[in-house]
Amino acid sequence: MKYPSGIKRGTLKTTNPIKSSNRIKYGSRGMTLEKDLDQANTYYLKENIAVIHKKPTPITVVKVDYPSRNKAKISEAYYKTPSTSDYNGIYKGKYIDFEAKETKNKTRFPFINIHSHQVEHMRQCHQNGGIVFLIIRFSAYNEVMLYPIERFLVHWDQYKLHDGKKSIPYQTIKSESILIQEKFTPRFDYLSAVDEFYLKER
Amino acid sequence: MKYPSGIKRGTLKTTNPIKSSNRIKYGSRGMTLEKDLDQANTYYLKENIAVIHKKPTPITVVKVDYPSRNKAKISEAYYKTPSTSDYNGIYKGKYIDFEAKETKNKTRFPFINIHSHQVEHMRQCHQNGGIVFLIIRFSAYNEVMLYPIERFLVHWDQYKLHDGKKSIPYQTIKSESILIQEKFTPRFDYLSAVDEFYLKER
Repeated sequence: MKYPSGIKRGTLKTTNPIKSSNRIKYGSRGMTLEKDLDQANTYYLKENIAVIHKKPTPITVVKVDYPSRNKAKISEAYYKTPSTSDYNGIYKGKYIDFEAKETKNKTRFPFINIHSHQVEHMRQCHQNGGIVFLIIRFSAYNEVMLYPIERFLVHWDQYKLHDGKKSIPYQTIKSESILIQEKFTPRFDYLSAVDEFYLKER
Repeated sequence: MKYPSGIKRGTLKTTNPIKSSNRIKYGSRGMTLEKDLDQANTYYLKENIAVIHKKPTPITVVKVDYPSRNKAKISEAYYKTPSTSDYNGIYKGKYIDFEAKETKNKTRFPFINIHSHQVEHMRQCHQNGGIVFLIIRFSAYNEVMLYPIERFLVHWDQYKLHDGKKSIPYQTIKSESILIQEKFTPRFDYLSAVDEFYLKER
């Protein structure tokens, strides 16, 4: 399955392949979770709770014009496949690393939503002692879950190494995740789920 | 002082303001340290010593063309001012955050080389328990130093809050830094300087 790379990257992905007829809608559909996470991160930063940022979308610049001395306009560039997850930072002295994914699928989370090198990056961060997870939003239920990478990897390795299933059932993820309760500020206080699973305090 | 933003970001900066006559050379001049750090990070990753990456250069995409269904070409975009430092990751379970700067200046490191919001980002990471530093290369001497942010901030705050000097003398930085010895692989093993200053082991 191929996505037009310009839309796929830098936005959050649903599990349905993009149709050329709804390219523009696709981008906005996926923005909800990203915006909510931005809001949470801004709140954490302002309150000095954590320093967590979304990384910029990787872009290869081919051509830059200089319409005037102090202005650079990029006139040819292409999206690159990201080699890491989208979010990282520090919380209570711990390294935090995660990827956020959104799916419209009601019954499962297909692995096609995530790049192999992103998973391997998260595995390495986990092995080096970081707190690493996926944040998955099932939009059909408006449920957002924090899925610890060590639990995700069991299914992923089954799929990759033993030709296992190409997805994880919704119910499995739900039972292995911490549900992120919707609040007022921030809307998705995912660090309280981090506390619950990893730090057992707050 | 204004730099053409297209060259300034994503490359390492010298202290000399860019002249329009040497725009292209400017980019390559600053690449040495960045390439050396990329080499070190690739080595650390491969040897499972640390997971540290350079963040992509932040770019605002204005216009995307689709010459074919599966191809996205960015035809108008602009460089954005970075809001964080360029490098972060995890080492021995610790959060690592740093910015790399190169200067041709023989006697001092002018503060104009670094953005205020990058300094404030590093201050926040430090306050949250991260290992945070600058890597400064004095190209005139081919000396690369790891300068702990807590020491840099003393001078920065003097400058910002008490109208102090606009630079730090080379000799001061040298006496307050850990010199990164040049080796074969990786060329600049900056994590051994991290060990020396922060972890006192290796």
